[in-house]
Amino acid sequence: MYHHVKKLMYTVNVDTPNVRFGNMLLEQFGGANGELAAAMQYTIQGWNCVDDLAIRDLLLDIGTEELSHLEVVGALIRLHLKDLKTNREAAEADPLVTIAGGGGVNLYNSQGNAWTADYLKITGELDVDLRSNIAAEARAKIVYERLLDHTDDPGTIDTLQFLMTREITHMKAFSAALESMEKPPFSIGFLKPTPGIVDEYFNGSTGDGSDGDTDMRGPWQTSFGLHPVDSEMNGGAGLSVQDIDGTEGQEARGKQDIGQKATTSPFADALSQTAPSTNKSGASGIDTHPSAGKKAAARSKSKK
Amino acid sequence: MYHHVKKLMYTVNVDTPNVRFGNMLLEQFGGANGELAAAMQYTIQGWNCVDDLAIRDLLLDIGTEELSHLEVVGALIRLHLKDLKTNREAAEADPLVTIAGGGGVNLYNSQGNAWTADYLKITGELDVDLRSNIAAEARAKIVYERLLDHTDDPGTIDTLQFLMTREITHMKAFSAALESMEKPPFSIGFLKPTPGIVDEYFNGSTGDGSDGDTDMRGPWQTSFGLHPVDSEMNGGAGLSVQDIDGTEGQEARGKQDIGQKATTSPFADALSQTAPSTNKSGASGIDTHPSAGKKAAARSKSKK
Amino acid sequence: MYHHVKKLMYTVNVDTPNVRFGNMLLEQFGGANGELAAAMQYTIQGWNCVDDLAIRDLLLDIGTEELSHLEVVGALIRLHLKDLKTNREAAEADPLVTIAGGGGVNLYNSQGNAWTADYLKITGELDVDLRSNIAAEARAKIVYERLLDHTDDPGTIDTLQFLMTREITHMKAFSAALESMEKPPFSIGFLKPTPGIVDEYFNGSTGDGSDGDTDMRGPWQTSFGLHPVDSEMNGGAGLSVQDIDGTEGQEARGKQDIGQKATTSPFADALSQTAPSTNKSGASGIDTHPSAGKKAAARSKSKK
Amino acid sequence: MYHHVKKLMYTVNVDTPNVRFGNMLLEQFGGANGELAAAMQYTIQGWNCVDDLAIRDLLLDIGTEELSHLEVVGALIRLHLKDLKTNREAAEADPLVTIAGGGGVNLYNSQGNAWTADYLKITGELDVDLRSNIAAEARAKIVYERLLDHTDDPGTIDTLQFLMTREITHMKAFSAALESMEKPPFSIGFLKPTPGIVDEYFNGSTGDGSDGDTDMRGPWQTSFGLHPVDSEMNGGAGLSVQDIDGTEGQEARGKQDIGQKATTSPFADALSQTAPSTNKSGASGIDTHPSAGKKAAARSKSKK
Amino acid sequence: MYHHVKKLMYTVNVDTPNVRFGNMLLEQFGGANGELAAAMQYTIQGWNCVDDLAIRDLLLDIGTEELSHLEVVGALIRLHLKDLKTNREAAEADPLVTIAGGGGVNLYNSQGNAWTADYLKITGELDVDLRSNIAAEARAKIVYERLLDHTDDPGTIDTLQFLMTREITHMKAFSAALESMEKPPFSIGFLKPTPGIVDEYFNGSTGDGSDGDTDMRGPWQTSFGLHPVDSEMNGGAGLSVQDIDGTEGQEARGKQDIGQKATTSPFADALSQTAPSTNKSGASGIDTHPSAGKKAAARSKSKK
Amino acid sequence: MYHHVKKLMYTVNVDTPNVRFGNMLLEQFGGANGELAAAMQYTIQGWNCVDDLAIRDLLLDIGTEELSHLEVVGALIRLHLKDLKTNREAAEADPLVTIAGGGGVNLYNSQGNAWTADYLKITGELDVDLRSNIAAEARAKIVYERLLDHTDDPGTIDTLQFLMTREITHMKAFSAALESMEKPPFSIGFLKPTPGIVDEYFNGSTGDGSDGDTDMRGPWQTSFGLHPVDSEMNGGAGLSVQDIDGTEGQEARGKQDIGQKATTSPFADALSQTAPSTNKSGASGIDTHPSAGKKAAARSKSKK
Repeated sequence: MYHHVKKLMYTVNVDTPNVRFGNMLLEQFGGANGELAAAMQYTIQGWNCVDDLAIRDLLLDIGTEELSHLEVVGALIRLHLKDLKTNREAAEADPLVTIAGGGGVNLYNSQGNAWTADYLKITGELDVDLRSNIAAEARAKIVYERLLDHTDDPGTIDTLQFLMTREITHMKAFSAALESMEKPPFSIGFLKPTPGIVDEYFNGSTGDGSDGDTDMRGPWQTSFGLHPVDSEMNGGAGLSVQDIDGTEGQEARGKQDIGQKATTSPFADALSQTAPSTNKSGASGIDTHPSAGKKAAARSKSKK
Repeated sequence: MYHHVKKLMYTVNVDTPNVRFGNMLLEQFGGANGELAAAMQYTIQGWNCVDDLAIRDLLLDIGTEELSHLEVVGALIRLHLKDLKTNREAAEADPLVTIAGGGGVNLYNSQGNAWTADYLKITGELDVDLRSNIAAEARAKIVYERLLDHTDDPGTIDTLQFLMTREITHMKAFSAALESMEKPPFSIGFLKPTPGIVDEYFNGSTGDGSDGDTDMRGPWQTSFGLHPVDSEMNGGAGLSVQDIDGTEGQEARGKQDIGQKATTSPFADALSQTAPSTNKSGASGIDTHPSAGKKAAARSKSKK
Repeated sequence: MYHHVKKLMYTVNVDTPNVRFGNMLLEQFGGANGELAAAMQYTIQGWNCVDDLAIRDLLLDIGTEELSHLEVVGALIRLHLKDLKTNREAAEADPLVTIAGGGGVNLYNSQGNAWTADYLKITGELDVDLRSNIAAEARAKIVYERLLDHTDDPGTIDTLQFLMTREITHMKAFSAALESMEKPPFSIGFLKPTPGIVDEYFNGSTGDGSDGDTDMRGPWQTSFGLHPVDSEMNGGAGLSVQDIDGTEGQEARGKQDIGQKATTSPFADALSQTAPSTNKSGASGIDTHPSAGKKAAARSKSKK
Repeated sequence: MYHHVKKLMYTVNVDTPNVRFGNMLLEQFGGANGELAAAMQYTIQGWNCVDDLAIRDLLLDIGTEELSHLEVVGALIRLHLKDLKTNREAAEADPLVTIAGGGGVNLYNSQGNAWTADYLKITGELDVDLRSNIAAEARAKIVYERLLDHTDDPGTIDTLQFLMTREITHMKAFSAALESMEKPPFSIGFLKPTPGIVDEYFNGSTGDGSDGDTDMRGPWQTSFGLHPVDSEMNGGAGLSVQDIDGTEGQEARGKQDIGQKATTSPFADALSQTAPSTNKSGASGIDTHPSAGKKAAARSKSKK
Repeated sequence: MYHHVKKLMYTVNVDTPNVRFGNMLLEQFGGANGELAAAMQYTIQGWNCVDDLAIRDLLLDIGTEELSHLEVVGALIRLHLKDLKTNREAAEADPLVTIAGGGGVNLYNSQGNAWTADYLKITGELDVDLRSNIAAEARAKIVYERLLDHTDDPGTIDTLQFLMTREITHMKAFSAALESMEKPPFSIGFLKPTPGIVDEYFNGSTGDGSDGDTDMRGPWQTSFGLHPVDSEMNGGAGLSVQDIDGTEGQEARGKQDIGQKATTSPFADALSQTAPSTNKSGASGIDTHPSAGKKAAARSKSKK
Repeated sequence: MYHHVKKLMYTVNVDTPNVRFGNMLLEQFGGANGELAAAMQYTIQGWNCVDDLAIRDLLLDIGTEELSHLEVVGALIRLHLKDLKTNREAAEADPLVTIAGGGGVNLYNSQGNAWTADYLKITGELDVDLRSNIAAEARAKIVYERLLDHTDDPGTIDTLQFLMTREITHMKAFSAALESMEKPPFSIGFLKPTPGIVDEYFNGSTGDGSDGDTDMRGPWQTSFGLHPVDSEMNGGAGLSVQDIDGTEGQEARGKQDIGQKATTSPFADALSQTAPSTNKSGASGIDTHPSAGKKAAARSKSKK
């Protein structure tokens, strides 16, 4: 249940309104990396997260704060768009907001595209969702930085600095939550990747470009067990793509094993009892993770 | 420049075609986390990445491989959709593909929504794009796992296991590339967050839910300098939201400083020479990162 | 600023989950007339409504309640979708939610279309927005009724009946607000329609249909000054469409005249002082409405 | 069946073409509240309305007129866009129309968004559709007014005044049609709202805002049986949300009862014979409306 | 100006309604190749075609007929969807139409996607638009054929056969119109392609596929002056892509030269007088077409 | 399988960057007739084309070349957009690319609309797809011509001339492929149109317009067996729309009969053996085409 308090989370002042900058700000109101996208992504992830009530709380804490940010951004935009109402030249800066919206904000981005839920990344797999959120906060941070780069208005800078700061706050919190799940690196979901093939870095783009972009090497070809493999087209052997014969084993799920699985896996129910039967490489794929729950113990209910 | 070789990157066999499963597979052809989305996201990021030719190569290597995966998924779907052409009941499983497409694949997801570039996350800020890619690979991995959970067909399992495996390969490579940039943790872009406010974890969702979802605590409230702050609404002091008075200092950019900036920042050009002037908290905000370039040295051109 | 309380506004119970019914319920979560559409439409109208702080409050009261309803509908859907996670046949009821979403809710409608802000009707003209809201509540009511018609599950019926009821509550409140503005009937905005032409009901569809749909007459051809006019094509004189020579006079705006106009009209600023100058038919177009503000007096601030 | 006459419904003259104003005018060609949206909404409602052939005729009369308006708006825009073809600076006013469209009109709005049927509000419930239409006409009127506010061109003003006038005509006609249905106030569809809960006005937004937006009271909290209820969060009792135990009774449908129902209700067929059986509060929910059909008698067939 | 006659262009009978087939039929109501797409594409092309009033008439003749077809398809669908209103299982065939639309038609395709103007192909270049229309009619024909393949209902077959037949009629008419323009083959617009490069068929896909799809040759590599060129990647010389140094000469425009150009070309106005000046290869690029207008003479005004 | 070579297919130089022109160029990157649309349309058609491996090769040759063009256009745009990064006024030319994209390209058109697969025309019926492709190439050619008309930059002209030229190359190749199929004129698919009705040109738009647009006649009313028919509304007899009684006969499919049909027709399998049984007008509808395969013989495998 939601409650609205008639107070902005951050005071909004604009010294010199600028219609075209107001239009740019719409990116953070109704744009792909904007506040509604953040609010909806985290909130709905939270509603879906019935297996881990602590992280559910985190998702709803931040999702709710983003709603408050949406209100702040909206207030800031309105102050910049004021001239749309009375000035024809200003109106040309955003005819859609002027003519269809009477100068008020709406869920458009800076080019008038209506907000769409296609912007959201929600999988129902908790650690995956946290990764999507970390990336989303990074994107929102850089968008606020670019907006800051395009204004000299002190009041506007003040508000944008606040909003930009909070993206880093949230990035920290989501990162801490991901760490607290204690998943092994590159372990996503339940099924294991095929050994061998998983470590082949495929060199799909080759040659010398006119801009000095030649075939380069980097740590991404040699870290985490990776090694480079050349395309047959380029004289290499290509990927070792002989038949795989079924799925590989399953990975441990960390502390998520305690609750109901957020995946659709038919193995999920069986997991706490015995080895799943449809897995061809056998139960050895299950590598129970003795330390799971360690950090989870650091979490305690705190009623108010 | 692209070249197509008339060979699938992985052999596709289907023992028992299943129209409704073919329809589900469309998620990875024209869906939000599917192969075209991956191919376009990485490839276009690569084309935009003119500052770091090594990571540009990485992005094009993987972007090109995803195009080859798109072809593999398309071939797999076609084998499953065969009955659409001759069987009325089958046709009802996907009337759009049947009636409009004659039983062939097209860029729709499993519910017939046309693929849209709104799925893509491309910011032109290299480390941010790498984070988006890591999250994208995690999502694609879990989607393949769910598809594996819904089929018993050996040939199909074989192909899906290959494709799922490669997502982990790419996740490793993108992670290695991000590490190689040696950005300090939670450092995104150029402008610093406001100290103090950045460490306040705001408790925006409180109370006792009927499903046991009470106000919880976790490491995300105390890690990385964070500390919890209660909403005024809940008897707390709220965020310390007094005016901020301009942007905070700038962060070092790591080795990206060498090339042209991928941000729109007006400070960018000035950076390699002198302290930027518009920054209110002064040049002290620049914390040159002596070790930048260390790992970069590990990269060497390798012409073929 | 928003606060979330970990309690649903209405208790949700489902006796017998039904995946296909859960899919239908998505209409009210991410559909065109669903709870997010309502929440966003009223809330953003409220943020734009700076001229009438009382109706702004109304819009935010109801917009906030709709957010709470979104949470209730989401909880109800989740209970119905449970089987998606483990049952292949169930999964076919909504492959998008199953495969991409892991069985969790997302902002799709019952056919998997992503929610879009194109659903919203926000003009920034207060009485027009209230009319859009009255119609929106009527649509939401009938959608809940149809959902009720398709389920026998007592718990589900219980929740839907609650949500359906609240749509009528809101319809009452918006109607009362519109009445309190005391606009003359068919008076929208500021500029008057052209006399004569405004009263011509044009008979654009004629003849005898095979289904008994002949050319009919009704009160809509003779009420409010209207009279029927036949198309020339049909032997009539057609509309009296000789040139109009400029805009007609302006209408009074009711009590909204007190505040800043939510229209883009250049006349707006001038209105409280003198007759606008660009209006060709002169100041006589202004018909000041002596009773404006009468009902407005019935509103009093009530601080808590 | 449609016929096109090579004559505009209103003569279009433009004295001084203005490309940027032409671009604004696209709102009424391919925009959310434009003429195609109106034509399609009313026409398709008419095709769906097989229960009331008189109102079906009304919907088709007006739907057809809106098609003629679409043609008028298109002609007006073309005259304004003339310079797009030969003038580079003009071209920048709308690159999409210039480059992709060769300077011709297309179904875009003023920001180049393609028209979408998501703009339409069609429920198949006659009185609800009429309410949506009344609101749609009000929106279209205010959009024309704003366009009039942004041009000084006499010929353009002349045409826009005509089009704006007709929106009021249609608003009158739809209002008369709704009145002729003689539905009790706030009676939508068939199922009754829950007494008690339906009259609780929930105060979801509270407190003192910095812009003077405090917690206000208005007639919308006390009209039509409503009374204010404070949120628990705010020290109030909240909504009386105890379980409802099934749906409430049914409402009469007015004269629509005579024909086939446009709802999906399973009760529909039973209605003209006996009390519906699945309704828990019994047949007393049916309140036959003796005067239904009274105004309907005022309608007579008029063949030409 | 449009007029509607209350008579379907073709009588619609359905012997055995089939909800799932009705859902498939939506492809031709609100789908990408459906009747609204056809009506809008041709009608708007006609409104834009002010240079050739005869072909403008053609476009409006057929555009208007497609509107009448839209009405026929809508009537056919409604008869098939009847059961949606009362039958729960039927409702699952199209929950969107059932729940949101009350069983009536709306501008969706068979998977519930809202119609979008993105389906339209309108360039404002007459011969190009005619080619788009010929292809559109071919697509619509094959879609009707597939619908015929999925029904045994005699009444439905009857109506679909009529509609399918008319697509061929329109294909003939558009083809005749294109021929009447007497454009040389492969002459589009005004600027000539670069000789040499225009005749190089590039072999971008090579090798032996497992399905027998090897590198093939066909007339498309040797007709119309074409000759095959191998990719450098494949040991060939690649395209002869040395710099081109400006645009090539202009082509004659056929009879369109008489009227105003539908292109944005700055050369357009100059064309009837002298050689354009910005063209680097000189006026020799203009190859006046002596026979232009020959077939045009076959057109005569025929007033009724 | 795809391979990327780090070399543009055509060298890109820009003498004087122009941000607004760069924005226009986005039409050919992420626009409706742009290079991604071409690449995806032909490539996916090729993947679906399993019946004619020669034309499959053609589709993949050209589809792959279009991917290389996408890269060229992207490089050209980036050079024009350079100023977006550092110049505020430039940024206003495309706020979406500036703020959300950091000055890099993305799959938007010139008005910021995200690319959508709704742009694609893919039916799985080979000759129909070739017609769609011919029209698509014609559209792409005219769009490049318009871009050429709006720039004086020599380097830009050079690149655009190359790209424009290749559209004509592809138009030639697709036309040759269509001819090689030796389909009779106006023969689409399998089922025949109804004789008589197929030849009636319906005069749906009549009268005298103010712009001289009267009811015209042209070859499209008398070619290919067509003859004009006046609307009843206009005093004519209308279409001869008596009942048709089932589908007409089937047409021969040309050389496609050899392979598996790309249509959903249930008759398809039966075709090579005996007359289909469900066709009411009997087997005489099959008009075997003795010359089918003649030109097909001109195709020979050519392995490299």
